[in-house]
Amino acid sequence: MTSTPPDAPHGPFGWIAEQAAARAAAGLHRELRPRPAESDLLDLAGNDYLGLTRHPEVTEAGARACRRWGAGATGSRLVTGSTALHAGLEAELADFTGFEAALVLASGYAANLAAVTALTGPGTLLVSDAANHASLIDGCRLSRARTEVTAHADPAAVRKVLAGHSGRAVVVSDTVFSVDGDAAPLAGLAAAARASGAALLLDDAHGLGVLGPGGRGAPNGAGLAGAPDVVCTATLSKSLGAQGGVVLGPAAVIDHLVNAARTFIFDTGLAPAAAGAALGALRLLRREPERPGRALAAARAFHRGLTAEGLDATAPDACVVSVRAPSPAAAVRWAADCRAAGLAVGCFRPPSVPDGVSRLRITANAALTQGQIASAIATVAATAPAGAR
Amino acid sequence: MTSTPPDAPHGPFGWIAEQAAARAAAGLHRELRPRPAESDLLDLAGNDYLGLTRHPEVTEAGARACRRWGAGATGSRLVTGSTALHAGLEAELADFTGFEAALVLASGYAANLAAVTALTGPGTLLVSDAANHASLIDGCRLSRARTEVTAHADPAAVRKVLAGHSGRAVVVSDTVFSVDGDAAPLAGLAAAARASGAALLLDDAHGLGVLGPGGRGAPNGAGLAGAPDVVCTATLSKSLGAQGGVVLGPAAVIDHLVNAARTFIFDTGLAPAAAGAALGALRLLRREPERPGRALAAARAFHRGLTAEGLDATAPDACVVSVRAPSPAAAVRWAADCRAAGLAVGCFRPPSVPDGVSRLRITANAALTQGQIASAIATVAATAPAGAR
Repeated sequence: MTSTPPDAPHGPFGWIAEQAAARAAAGLHRELRPRPAESDLLDLAGNDYLGLTRHPEVTEAGARACRRWGAGATGSRLVTGSTALHAGLEAELADFTGFEAALVLASGYAANLAAVTALTGPGTLLVSDAANHASLIDGCRLSRARTEVTAHADPAAVRKVLAGHSGRAVVVSDTVFSVDGDAAPLAGLAAAARASGAALLLDDAHGLGVLGPGGRGAPNGAGLAGAPDVVCTATLSKSLGAQGGVVLGPAAVIDHLVNAARTFIFDTGLAPAAAGAALGALRLLRREPERPGRALAAARAFHRGLTAEGLDATAPDACVVSVRAPSPAAAVRWAADCRAAGLAVGCFRPPSVPDGVSRLRITANAALTQGQIASAIATVAATAPAGAR
Repeated sequence: MTSTPPDAPHGPFGWIAEQAAARAAAGLHRELRPRPAESDLLDLAGNDYLGLTRHPEVTEAGARACRRWGAGATGSRLVTGSTALHAGLEAELADFTGFEAALVLASGYAANLAAVTALTGPGTLLVSDAANHASLIDGCRLSRARTEVTAHADPAAVRKVLAGHSGRAVVVSDTVFSVDGDAAPLAGLAAAARASGAALLLDDAHGLGVLGPGGRGAPNGAGLAGAPDVVCTATLSKSLGAQGGVVLGPAAVIDHLVNAARTFIFDTGLAPAAAGAALGALRLLRREPERPGRALAAARAFHRGLTAEGLDATAPDACVVSVRAPSPAAAVRWAADCRAAGLAVGCFRPPSVPDGVSRLRITANAALTQGQIASAIATVAATAPAGAR
């Protein structure tokens, strides 16, 4: 992540060299660092919150689906890309989370673009939390609807914006914010939306599988699942260990998405291997409902330990703990020092952070032992740069 | 595809019922029809042009990757989502197509959003073919750049628009248009772009694997692969039988995408099973370079036979043959009659067709026999509605 960009291009891409040089000078150049299949690093950077992505039951379910249904869906879900496997996954996702119906897409990003754009029309107001995920923001942009960005986690601000609008409106929020791991005030948002007859669209990417009873998700935990005015999106690539996204909501809304959502209609269906693996993970989660609690306990242990070490760590509402670094360069060095000590942690820098503050991002998962947690806390503390405390 | 939508919703989604009723009245309501794992239907609707998605070598490569690397990538490609498998796939895709570098994303849709948005900035002009795919159109919208839509396949129109602009510009076109299967005038587009110092962005979703020498893609066939001013996108979900998308281009452009493309940075990496299957398909294609020719010959046979039957079929430049229907309702009935006779064909209606004309969409593939092709032509002709000739 510290190397220099490739040679400067000429011709119509010459401007790219200037941007690359500016990024390098600011310590913000990124490069890919492919990992091997087996590694001695302890993974505290991925979003495999339940430790399922390499669980034999999940990988076997994926491998079996690949063999039985083919390596790809072969077309749009509206043409040849819907299999009985997709339908079964959708039925189980809806049943598990408590929503009436579900629609699976190729990615969580696509699910958010689909939901935001298909639920808006001329005159619709979108009310979007300032810390929402990039895919929700891009959905708002793509919808061309008027978007009011409200202060982070502020139902009163949402209520105020809605009060000044007549006509259709949708309140859009992550349930758990991916950078700092804090939860949205769901009850307050729902009350604000309902006071104005607005719909509520929640992205439960970091909540499904860890929040709510047995991991049924944050909307379920807040009593919002299955409500006629609530739509929820989530990913199959975090707690469920696979790939893909899902939109959950009233059957009529899901039917509307089938007919109107461009990222659903004009994209190839999710690969059977991913659908099969997600279904395998969902069934395993139903059978082992203690996994979410183990993951949450690990996150709280990280927060306690890092705070006790004098570091500025966020209190986790789900599995993400974020630790402030004094600068982008210091964050990169800190993550590299952790890596050298056997620990893979996330390093979030602009433009991936809404407030411009660089951080280490540490994710907990259900497979961590007490010893691993304690040792990881000690490593992060020992490698902390000046200014992190 | 002919049923009625679910019960009318109440509350903030009440407007959805009106739209559903209007669609139903116009014969445009769609619903999903999940297919079984094994079917007696002959598939002339999917985009599995080389017949690889269920090839044992490809499904085994996918299954093996799922077991070895896990069911999911676990995070963004910038965090934990890049594996040596992804890097290997990218190297082979670049080598095969003749581009300097490659970047794999979770879907072709994501690849197009990434390429269009990351290659534009303040003042950039996008020149977009009127028949471009939805994902390119959404990329143009998301970029917020000024977009001039030019007449379909019209280099002179592109040249005229570029002549009236000073500053950065990108000419954006499918290489093969997905609805009618016609090819873009690549030499003319490249000359028009170069006359003004504009970049050329090509979506080779329907060209990779079937056009160019050994299926190396339309840009390779046109001598544009590896050029410093050309970027190409493609899918891994059509000829390569898996899931995912790829951006191909100069190494500096790919590095720029890693640093700037939101659908790359903020999305989970492609699942290992899909990456492994695509790599397996690519290696098989290198070993069996006659597959593309077989697929193209089948498409030409469909066109000859359907035209001889008096139907209005498009001349295929790749594997798609489109047959005009007199109305959306007639197209739906026609497709249903084909299905009853053992033939799965695509049925494209508004809003999936740029000109509002409904069609059957027939896709050829390398696995079809002469007998299957002759029998399919006879079935399509025998079930043709009044007004199709």
